[in-house]
Amino acid sequence: MSTRRKMHLVAFLKTGPTCHHHGMWRHPESDNDFLDPAWYEHVARVLEKGKFDCLFFADTLGIFDLYKGGFDTMLGRGGQMGLLDPMPVLAIMARVTRHIGLGATMSTTYFNPYHIARLLGTLDHLSKGRMAWNVVSSINHLEARNFGEERLPDRDTRYDRADEVLEACGKLWESWDADALVMDKERGVFADPSKIHYVNYAGQWIKTRGPLNSGPCPQGQPVIAQAGGSPRGRAFAARHADTIVAHGKGIGGMKAYRDDVRRHMIAHGRNPEDCKVLFMIAPILGETEELAQEHKRRRAAVAEAQIPERLAFFGKLLNVDFSGFDLERPICDIDITTNGHQLNLEQFKRIAGTRTLREAMADYNATSLSIELVGTPDSVAARMGEAMEEVGGDGYLFSLPNISRRTIAEIEDGLVPALQDRGLVRKAYAFPQFRDNLLEF
Amino acid sequence: MSTRRKMHLVAFLKTGPTCHHHGMWRHPESDNDFLDPAWYEHVARVLEKGKFDCLFFADTLGIFDLYKGGFDTMLGRGGQMGLLDPMPVLAIMARVTRHIGLGATMSTTYFNPYHIARLLGTLDHLSKGRMAWNVVSSINHLEARNFGEERLPDRDTRYDRADEVLEACGKLWESWDADALVMDKERGVFADPSKIHYVNYAGQWIKTRGPLNSGPCPQGQPVIAQAGGSPRGRAFAARHADTIVAHGKGIGGMKAYRDDVRRHMIAHGRNPEDCKVLFMIAPILGETEELAQEHKRRRAAVAEAQIPERLAFFGKLLNVDFSGFDLERPICDIDITTNGHQLNLEQFKRIAGTRTLREAMADYNATSLSIELVGTPDSVAARMGEAMEEVGGDGYLFSLPNISRRTIAEIEDGLVPALQDRGLVRKAYAFPQFRDNLLEF
Repeated sequence: MSTRRKMHLVAFLKTGPTCHHHGMWRHPESDNDFLDPAWYEHVARVLEKGKFDCLFFADTLGIFDLYKGGFDTMLGRGGQMGLLDPMPVLAIMARVTRHIGLGATMSTTYFNPYHIARLLGTLDHLSKGRMAWNVVSSINHLEARNFGEERLPDRDTRYDRADEVLEACGKLWESWDADALVMDKERGVFADPSKIHYVNYAGQWIKTRGPLNSGPCPQGQPVIAQAGGSPRGRAFAARHADTIVAHGKGIGGMKAYRDDVRRHMIAHGRNPEDCKVLFMIAPILGETEELAQEHKRRRAAVAEAQIPERLAFFGKLLNVDFSGFDLERPICDIDITTNGHQLNLEQFKRIAGTRTLREAMADYNATSLSIELVGTPDSVAARMGEAMEEVGGDGYLFSLPNISRRTIAEIEDGLVPALQDRGLVRKAYAFPQFRDNLLEF
Repeated sequence: MSTRRKMHLVAFLKTGPTCHHHGMWRHPESDNDFLDPAWYEHVARVLEKGKFDCLFFADTLGIFDLYKGGFDTMLGRGGQMGLLDPMPVLAIMARVTRHIGLGATMSTTYFNPYHIARLLGTLDHLSKGRMAWNVVSSINHLEARNFGEERLPDRDTRYDRADEVLEACGKLWESWDADALVMDKERGVFADPSKIHYVNYAGQWIKTRGPLNSGPCPQGQPVIAQAGGSPRGRAFAARHADTIVAHGKGIGGMKAYRDDVRRHMIAHGRNPEDCKVLFMIAPILGETEELAQEHKRRRAAVAEAQIPERLAFFGKLLNVDFSGFDLERPICDIDITTNGHQLNLEQFKRIAGTRTLREAMADYNATSLSIELVGTPDSVAARMGEAMEEVGGDGYLFSLPNISRRTIAEIEDGLVPALQDRGLVRKAYAFPQFRDNLLEF
């Protein structure tokens, strides 16, 4: 692996008050403009200036209320959550940018494939070929309850259904050949019906006839993103994904995860170069190393005060109400099981070890990150390059620490130029469509 | 009824090659930019310049293929259809306008209320209080088939379900009090949980727990639009709607329809002034009366060539394949029944009378219009005012005859100023939110 191979950068966002960093909405510099379209336009413009491959929104179809059996903690204290539906937000971001990819999270458990395919196909037209779909299956009973069910289907059923939804969407996107739309005014031929096809998809869970009505999708189909953790999840990702939000802690864990995904891809007859594995980071930057460490200390102090919303959010990932557990007890002595994110729980237990629940939660953000990055733009850029060299590729997913204009500017004006100076990231987009940029290196 | 009471103007659009006027995509001036976001931005800006109350998109969740058992006619010849999903299109239109209302058609049969409520709630934020929902229940088996069912539920079931979906959405929009979002950084209070409520809606068809996660809806809830034709449809509209796309042919029919809706509203304990009844028109304008008549003749010639796609489209409204009927037979001798738009069929039969199917189809556009308007901007404006005077109110829904920049400009630069000169329509918006503008007069 040569250092000359560039890294991909993707931004991870939510349509709510904070993203991964609980309590950051209280920061004096936090604008909290998350209901204002102008904020999203600003974010999109700045990330495109930084030549990010893509931005995408995580999403949940409801408000977390497992903790203490209610939403008081999450809403009262302002934990991380998505509020606005990301789809119209992405349409707005598409109109103020020309190159950056735009990703939407849509659940295969509670969205119908015809809606998914048409919405994303439409956005692919409106963005001229820049859409991605972050494919998730729901992991919370709270989502089930908003959609008329008492409980989620079990995990295998959810993955079986997810396979079918993805297959059905693929068929719907294929239902128009790329050149089906003729629009020949002279001959009076609007489209060539022989190039438009019924889908007639009939699985165990999903049926759809098609054809899709949004016409041929500019990218053929949107870029498929995935975040498989469990063995079944990794197999799903290896089969379908163009890019993966990777689990994996530290260089060893990152490398093991990536190698595993690539083995799965080969087993599915895919070229492993066709899927980019990205690792979650949240760099803490300062003009000097000392200042960066000072920022880190301040953030830790905030974290100490945010234990309840951290527990409320982490419990949402695992479908577990943590309010019943003793904060002062070591994690290894607490019996926690989950019907939710399997790998998240295992990784949490492994990393937390003999620490107490309180100690683990104070450091919770760090446990979801692949490597810790604290320093000057230059030293962080160097560390990012070294880590990728050791892991083998392919790039990073930035959890933006709090959604203030300054924090984003810090990455664009500080870190990205440092990465560019080292030849680690692109200085210009090579292609108009997202998939082409993702596959460029 | 005083002439000083102003009329409301609404534009009726589709995200496809034509709207009501089949074959118009072939017109030399048709831009056919219906996959391009810049086109929608242009339309929104021009309609706002004309001080329209609202624009809205009709929509169908699939491609009509009843005629001759396939989609060859509709797609091959380019009949009227919606292609792009209107929701992201409306987000884009919201960003280039400040006052005009923005309406989306979403089916209560195939959309889940949580999605409807969150999408429209989100768009109400992004447009700062300008969204409307055109509530429809699906009328085509083709929609059923794209959503995994062989046939539509029967009409009563669809209306029962529609009632529940609307109730459930209403509860979801009420799940946040207007002042629930506090965002007090000092005290660390993000929201007041006592002002956010579970919905726990449980009907026969629909269940949802809530609360909605998109926060308090700026308008409380979007403006509700409806197009009830059948007795059940009218009752539904009278119960729920802020504005109605009216059926009713000629002054007598228009007046009868409006009076009926108002009676229903009073029976439901509503003030009839709170629902604006709008009548469909498609003015043909010319600089002189002669030129307008000449435009009408040319359009009729086009219509003659478009019999197949007219039959394909009309058959879609009625769930009937018209290809089996003899074009030369009088309508009154043909046995047509429908599980679709009941009133459309009755009105069609009544108006068509002893004419043949071919004759009726050549004149089909006219049958869906309330009054025919052909003339100079000034004479058409005068006629629009007289008709409203006779009917009692409340305004018109414009079916834009073909989606060329010139046609829209003709209305904005010709007809609207003529209406304004007569004091028949507003010269400026009085309020930032749509409902307030709709209720202004």
